[in-house]
Amino acid sequence: MKALLVYAHPEPRSFNASLKQVAIDTLEQQGFEVHVSDLYAMKFNPVAGHADFLQPLDPETLNISIEQRHGYKHGTLAADINQQLEYLLQAELLIFQFPLWWFGMPAILKGWVDRVLISGTVYGRTAQFDRGRLKNKRALACVTTGADQASFAADGINGDIHLLLMPLLRGVFGFTGMTVLPPFIGYSVPYISEQNRHQMMTDYSKYLAELDLLTPLEMPK
Amino acid sequence: MKALLVYAHPEPRSFNASLKQVAIDTLEQQGFEVHVSDLYAMKFNPVAGHADFLQPLDPETLNISIEQRHGYKHGTLAADINQQLEYLLQAELLIFQFPLWWFGMPAILKGWVDRVLISGTVYGRTAQFDRGRLKNKRALACVTTGADQASFAADGINGDIHLLLMPLLRGVFGFTGMTVLPPFIGYSVPYISEQNRHQMMTDYSKYLAELDLLTPLEMPK
Repeated sequence: MKALLVYAHPEPRSFNASLKQVAIDTLEQQGFEVHVSDLYAMKFNPVAGHADFLQPLDPETLNISIEQRHGYKHGTLAADINQQLEYLLQAELLIFQFPLWWFGMPAILKGWVDRVLISGTVYGRTAQFDRGRLKNKRALACVTTGADQASFAADGINGDIHLLLMPLLRGVFGFTGMTVLPPFIGYSVPYISEQNRHQMMTDYSKYLAELDLLTPLEMPK
Repeated sequence: MKALLVYAHPEPRSFNASLKQVAIDTLEQQGFEVHVSDLYAMKFNPVAGHADFLQPLDPETLNISIEQRHGYKHGTLAADINQQLEYLLQAELLIFQFPLWWFGMPAILKGWVDRVLISGTVYGRTAQFDRGRLKNKRALACVTTGADQASFAADGINGDIHLLLMPLLRGVFGFTGMTVLPPFIGYSVPYISEQNRHQMMTDYSKYLAELDLLTPLEMPK
């Protein structure tokens, strides 16, 4: 069993780094082979564009989804896209680990989505949701926030965090056909005690050890 | 009156580029001085990190919001952040022009948000929504999609586009105190006729010429 952990935090001493390590340890104990794509450490380029396509079908006018299909077919996608795609296609479990920045993924992670989840191989105009091409994989997000849990309730000032995460949970994970597990969310991270952070790590480890017990999120058919 | 148009598309021959030009022309006719931040043309760096802070308070461990406040106070933010921030603070109208990629902003635009909307100057722990520091500015998004309008209805396969845009409309524009105008959305752009695209440009021009008639979105107090 393989897992791909895509990790987006610039600071190796961060709490996100600790959660990443919890995931590696817990999943390895369960027999997973874990690959970590540490986007900051890799200096991953998050900007989709001309340079993604080494021998474009149309060198004059860029149409990204057409070039993605062409590039995959002819083996002319940029090397970093190919490499990440290979990790993704081999994995049975995908984890996104990130701090919530402006109510979404840090740009470096959004750009991994933009560049690696290519048209044709991952989804198509009719290959979406239960016909998406990443069926039989499970996906989950582990997200930390600065604001507290009450602010992310349905009537909280920030709004329902499950709605705020919908573009990722439904729009990325669900759209490509993956089974979407409920996210693990660590609230108020900059403001809680060391003891509470340790509790969060324990909770996360338990969550990861019991993925089979989780009820996947409902997705459109 | 100044407007800042932040534009994110890699292809100068794209329909997004045409919409950008419609905005420039229409707003200039109304007396706006329009600055365009063409993120792809500028090769804007969307990755928030250590390099944003030329003389960090803590060179060892990165805490982005603390460094943003420190960097602004001491004039030691990276030059590109300072420049974009200056355009933003001078503008009365902010426009984001982008194609919907994976149900959100292209990474290069998300990274503009991550890097330019700095803690302290733009928002604070209590300076949010109607106490946000960008009060008295208006903001709008002009978004193009590949999928059709029905797919973005509340019962559509992609889900309600207004919920999908909530992280931007409420989480970015609203959170910082701006008056948020309803977005202009161009659906099915790759699949419609040239005539329909021209109609869309006409509709967008009319929308921009009549911003005062639009009812802003409701935001938390």
